[in-house]
Amino acid sequence: MLIIGERVNTSRKRMREAVQKKESPFIRQEAKRQADAGAMCIDVNCGTFVGQEAEYMAWLVDTIQEVVDLPLCIDSPDPKALKVGLERHTKGQPMINSITMEKDRFDQIVPLVLEHQTMIVGLCMAEGGMPNTAEERLDIASHLIEGLTSVGVPIGDIYIDPVVCPVGTDTRNGRTVLEAIHRIRTSYEGVHILCGLSNVSFGLPLRKLLNQNFLTMCMVMGLDAVILDPLDPHMMSHLMASDTLLGNDDFCMNYLAAQREGRLGI
Amino acid sequence: MLIIGERVNTSRKRMREAVQKKESPFIRQEAKRQADAGAMCIDVNCGTFVGQEAEYMAWLVDTIQEVVDLPLCIDSPDPKALKVGLERHTKGQPMINSITMEKDRFDQIVPLVLEHQTMIVGLCMAEGGMPNTAEERLDIASHLIEGLTSVGVPIGDIYIDPVVCPVGTDTRNGRTVLEAIHRIRTSYEGVHILCGLSNVSFGLPLRKLLNQNFLTMCMVMGLDAVILDPLDPHMMSHLMASDTLLGNDDFCMNYLAAQREGRLGI
Repeated sequence: MLIIGERVNTSRKRMREAVQKKESPFIRQEAKRQADAGAMCIDVNCGTFVGQEAEYMAWLVDTIQEVVDLPLCIDSPDPKALKVGLERHTKGQPMINSITMEKDRFDQIVPLVLEHQTMIVGLCMAEGGMPNTAEERLDIASHLIEGLTSVGVPIGDIYIDPVVCPVGTDTRNGRTVLEAIHRIRTSYEGVHILCGLSNVSFGLPLRKLLNQNFLTMCMVMGLDAVILDPLDPHMMSHLMASDTLLGNDDFCMNYLAAQREGRLGI
Repeated sequence: MLIIGERVNTSRKRMREAVQKKESPFIRQEAKRQADAGAMCIDVNCGTFVGQEAEYMAWLVDTIQEVVDLPLCIDSPDPKALKVGLERHTKGQPMINSITMEKDRFDQIVPLVLEHQTMIVGLCMAEGGMPNTAEERLDIASHLIEGLTSVGVPIGDIYIDPVVCPVGTDTRNGRTVLEAIHRIRTSYEGVHILCGLSNVSFGLPLRKLLNQNFLTMCMVMGLDAVILDPLDPHMMSHLMASDTLLGNDDFCMNYLAAQREGRLGI
């Protein structure tokens, strides 16, 4: 599992303040804590600063790279912000979050993917908006995978996000994403599948309980990358337990080590 | 999900003492608490009393039925103990746990299934011992389903138990059962699939964390009955959250009610 830390996101109030005031110590600490907790990549999103996103992105990428050696996930729909972030990225292979099949966005982001040889998140959104069924998601995923590989992006650099919708608005929404993951996984060898989970529980109480269980479900179906808060010990415990149960942990060594180090909890 | 309460089992030390001394108040309390916590059927197992199992089974069935109106799962490999338990069973359709394809056991238990029109748990064990692969489990399940339906047992009364083995002894054991559940579910419409989960975590620390996640995984694949301790609030919370995520909870009503009543926890 590729674990992408989600905390450097200005939709969080405290993060928005810190970025606005350019509080480097806070940003560095948030990046460092995520790395220490098991993040393998740090998502960087300052999309709330409309019009100034590129400036803040540049500063965030510089600041985070002072303290962590992990690749960053440059998270913006704005090609200008992506470009600046990628040009300053120095620690391994960067990730772009995200591209869609919307023509303008696709055409502007593909050159960045190729120039910087990035990992690329492909969102299952169509020109017409949100997909409804698993079938539609597979269809959009197919277009993304074929579009990206046809211009030279290796399939192993593509991360399909099937787009999770709340079960609170339609009880079928969980099953739909699980089926989409299964169908993408069995249709395209070598592609990665990534989710942000938390949307599934929007509007319901005890969201973490639902998010934890949905992570486990998605992993069974073939999810191999996730954007989450690595400082949440329950979520990380569920992730490690699921990896062990799915046979991805030889001799249960990671699970046993995590338990010895006090990192597991129910 | 059919929830079968597992606490009346003399492999638990306190239960063994209580049965030995015929402490009816303790037995009644254990049955009542499980019913109140959401059990829909109470498993009754006194298999540790070799040679006296039938006698204790009769007493347990009588004692439990004094306080709960749920059907019981008469849990024994011994046809004599099953017979006595079934003859005293008065609350709805009883369940037998379990039958196998071993010839003697099959031939002795089938008449009881037919006479008492029971639900019947079919264990995926062969004459040669434990199955290794998902394929072998599907093969044994097929024999059980065909054997039972050919003598007149309705497929909707059959509960196949694919037999869970510890991931601590072979990391493939979790995946094997998940695949077996999926294959049985997609091969036989109307059959039920049941597990005892806890064997998956045998020999590992923090067993409940693994058991909770394995329940969620099995439910994704098509498990629709489970033997567990309904007094474990974490396990029950995971079960309810998973049911909601899988679209089995219209308008999330059960989840919301459980939360309001303080029955959910992370």
